[in-house]
Amino acid sequence: MTRTELASYIQAKKSVLCVGLDPDLDKMPAQFTRDAQGVADFCCAIIDATSDYAVAYKPNLAFFESLGLEGWAALAQVAQHLSKYPEHFSIADAKRGDIGNTARHYAEGILGQLGFDSITVAPYMGRDSLEPFALPGKWAIALGLTSNPGAQDFQMQAMADGRPLYAHVLDSYATWASPDQWMVVVGATRPEGLAAVRKQLPDHFFLVPGVGAQGGSVEDVMKAGAVPGEIALLINSSRGILYASSEADFAEAAAREAARLVQEMKQHWPS
Amino acid sequence: MTRTELASYIQAKKSVLCVGLDPDLDKMPAQFTRDAQGVADFCCAIIDATSDYAVAYKPNLAFFESLGLEGWAALAQVAQHLSKYPEHFSIADAKRGDIGNTARHYAEGILGQLGFDSITVAPYMGRDSLEPFALPGKWAIALGLTSNPGAQDFQMQAMADGRPLYAHVLDSYATWASPDQWMVVVGATRPEGLAAVRKQLPDHFFLVPGVGAQGGSVEDVMKAGAVPGEIALLINSSRGILYASSEADFAEAAAREAARLVQEMKQHWPS
Repeated sequence: MTRTELASYIQAKKSVLCVGLDPDLDKMPAQFTRDAQGVADFCCAIIDATSDYAVAYKPNLAFFESLGLEGWAALAQVAQHLSKYPEHFSIADAKRGDIGNTARHYAEGILGQLGFDSITVAPYMGRDSLEPFALPGKWAIALGLTSNPGAQDFQMQAMADGRPLYAHVLDSYATWASPDQWMVVVGATRPEGLAAVRKQLPDHFFLVPGVGAQGGSVEDVMKAGAVPGEIALLINSSRGILYASSEADFAEAAAREAARLVQEMKQHWPS
Repeated sequence: MTRTELASYIQAKKSVLCVGLDPDLDKMPAQFTRDAQGVADFCCAIIDATSDYAVAYKPNLAFFESLGLEGWAALAQVAQHLSKYPEHFSIADAKRGDIGNTARHYAEGILGQLGFDSITVAPYMGRDSLEPFALPGKWAIALGLTSNPGAQDFQMQAMADGRPLYAHVLDSYATWASPDQWMVVVGATRPEGLAAVRKQLPDHFFLVPGVGAQGGSVEDVMKAGAVPGEIALLINSSRGILYASSEADFAEAAAREAARLVQEMKQHWPS
């Protein structure tokens, strides 16, 4: 998916909602079997229930890999289902990163074989570990400032010039690739950080996790990060939508929660 | 596998050889089919051919994921085959890393379901993204100073105190977990770096890639990193062993190359 296409889907819907698919056997509605097939069925049902509101879907690969080989079959089923929604941006939340030759193999598997539009990647190994993911028509979504407590350990530590590591990482991203194929992960739990990152990278799309269960708010994220026109955000919600109800009405409850988040986005939509 | 067990296997064989399984369809011997089953068969044949020399095996998950769902089935076959060699340490070279709740799912899949002794992990997201992998009887193998050009981009950049980022990362590793469950990746292409890391972490096992095709030498690595007694190294060779011959004699050629590397290790074995 190109940037122009993504921006047009966002404008048409007035939504930057990304639904994170983190299917947890212990939390899924009772009607789904506690196995990989249940996981696939649950994810596909959530996609169908929320597609009017969401512009992106983000399966987190850990929740599939935890089920072994059958979990991968479930992921392939979900990827196949997402391919029926070509106007929704698909993100493999995989946080891969390895030397160039190896990175190319990850790209082939996740962007090629499974057909995702994009993949999340981790920067510790540097440029040659990241660039192979920015394939034609595909996107690398690279970690910038994350929403978890561990962001403090390295990302927020000062480098020789006094600026934090994550700011240096963002500088590098800006020189390595076009913002037409490169997004950055910026956690919603640090709105002051988000505003700083937006100042540093005015043209990049940000994938923003951490709204809801992790404590971030849609209002804060829209105010700190939205750019008039393209908006250039994807705000992710996982648990709040997936587990809005654990009963038979889970799909309606998920749709209601998605609609509520989109309503909040519209309220703070920059004019 | 416990540290005591690993050290005893190393001493019994006088070898710290880890065979990296990076099966490439374009380079495999002609007798194997160009598909996931061929990949599994090739890896199992390499394991059987080199098991007298190696103390560890390290499948790189990218080379399996690149083949999609069937690639994962091939990885599961290789993991199953490795379970028949309980005196060989198995490493899933996966470079995973995500927030704590998600990291636990990766650990469950790769250390639990697939049964690997250890997994390589990437540190950008900090402590809570790494600790879930140090499960009872299992190991986290965390990136320290890598062997690729991109190591220069962030790892070797100076922090506020003038020391490079990777040295700070190693400091954290030393306080986060016991060296009985925590190894560090240190590339062979930077022997001066390896000596510095050994000084900083005298008790940790290092997984050392980059010998052979990437330019590092066994002699330099043994001299810079081997600790009398436990040695505390695993020196990885992938392409040099896997593709020692592309003909019908590939297994004998792989064994010969493995034997040659172990001979070099013995020559520089600290007394």
